[in-house]
Amino acid sequence: MAEIQMALDSLDFDATMALAEQVAPYVDILEIGTPCIKYNGLKLVTALKAAHPDKKILVDLKTMDAGEYEATPFYEAGGTICTVLGAADMATIGGVIKAANANGAEAQVDLIGVEDKAAVAKAAAANGAQIIGVHTGLDAQAAGQTPFADLNMIAGLGMDVKISVAGGINKDTIQSTVQAGAAIVVVGAAIYGAPSPAESAKELRALVDAA
Amino acid sequence: MAEIQMALDSLDFDATMALAEQVAPYVDILEIGTPCIKYNGLKLVTALKAAHPDKKILVDLKTMDAGEYEATPFYEAGGTICTVLGAADMATIGGVIKAANANGAEAQVDLIGVEDKAAVAKAAAANGAQIIGVHTGLDAQAAGQTPFADLNMIAGLGMDVKISVAGGINKDTIQSTVQAGAAIVVVGAAIYGAPSPAESAKELRALVDAA
Repeated sequence: MAEIQMALDSLDFDATMALAEQVAPYVDILEIGTPCIKYNGLKLVTALKAAHPDKKILVDLKTMDAGEYEATPFYEAGGTICTVLGAADMATIGGVIKAANANGAEAQVDLIGVEDKAAVAKAAAANGAQIIGVHTGLDAQAAGQTPFADLNMIAGLGMDVKISVAGGINKDTIQSTVQAGAAIVVVGAAIYGAPSPAESAKELRALVDAA
Repeated sequence: MAEIQMALDSLDFDATMALAEQVAPYVDILEIGTPCIKYNGLKLVTALKAAHPDKKILVDLKTMDAGEYEATPFYEAGGTICTVLGAADMATIGGVIKAANANGAEAQVDLIGVEDKAAVAKAAAANGAQIIGVHTGLDAQAAGQTPFADLNMIAGLGMDVKISVAGGINKDTIQSTVQAGAAIVVVGAAIYGAPSPAESAKELRALVDAA
């Protein structure tokens, strides 16, 4: 059964907490987006975990250096998954994996911006990363790109990792994304841009569960 | 005259403010390190600028996506320079440059982890980046790497940008770094690891001014 991850992309602390409250019944993972964590800091992880102790919390750190040092406090504060960039040095990726393992948590390697995605995904998996993130960023989405070709390529490697997919997934594409091998589907604008985020999340939940 | 940038790499808010206070008389730029900004959030930029209105503040965001959206509030809060990863999409780099220009501030493109550093540096400069960062990260430093060969290569391109150099610079290497073309030299452990950070900063200031 695939998991739904809700990307909380606002900068505002209260708006982020309020949106999480609306969608929590329908999603598995609450993601604190990169701009949001940089803007608000660690206290948002603590607050979100306290409000939703039964949900996984993903902290989208997109770590590029000082892996273990940067990620450790976010795991300790309640992060279930932290992200590290596939573009980072493998020592940095290894540092985040080490911090994850020390906290009974998971590390996700984000392939955004990586040239040789297959090579990095394989190396990261071999180093113990639990999740590989196939990710078309917001700026690349604005230029019309999607993550689906990369998903097929990474799924085709047959690795023993979870694949997370992000990049403009909506109700028209979420089922095919699951069917193509995504263990985690990330939804952002399709929920927070909807007239009723809760209704949209509920609809996406039903689609994923039927996929 | 080269500028000295002090990397504030602690996670603790009060320790960061206290270290800045000690070294401010001797440095030009106070850098909020990436782990530190993620841990503390925007309020640290506001506090540091309020305490040191005459200093430049660098916010080491290492932005990888959503450039304009992520960087804008940090410039508005008093950041003089924000960093964006050279590994990012050029649209992301352009977004940070746009946010910098909208605030009369500067964008620094960090070449950490970039394969073809010359190509990215040239493209970033052509897109209006004011500073190119030659940067050996903490994890790569731990593996024995230094930024000096990359500095010579980037300086040799003769571009009309400032070059910032970071990666374990200390009193033995700071003068040759300036002489090799660094407009900004970043110092971290050489100051905060010293018995007296203020004395170390003063010594480095004298070395830079005599270089």
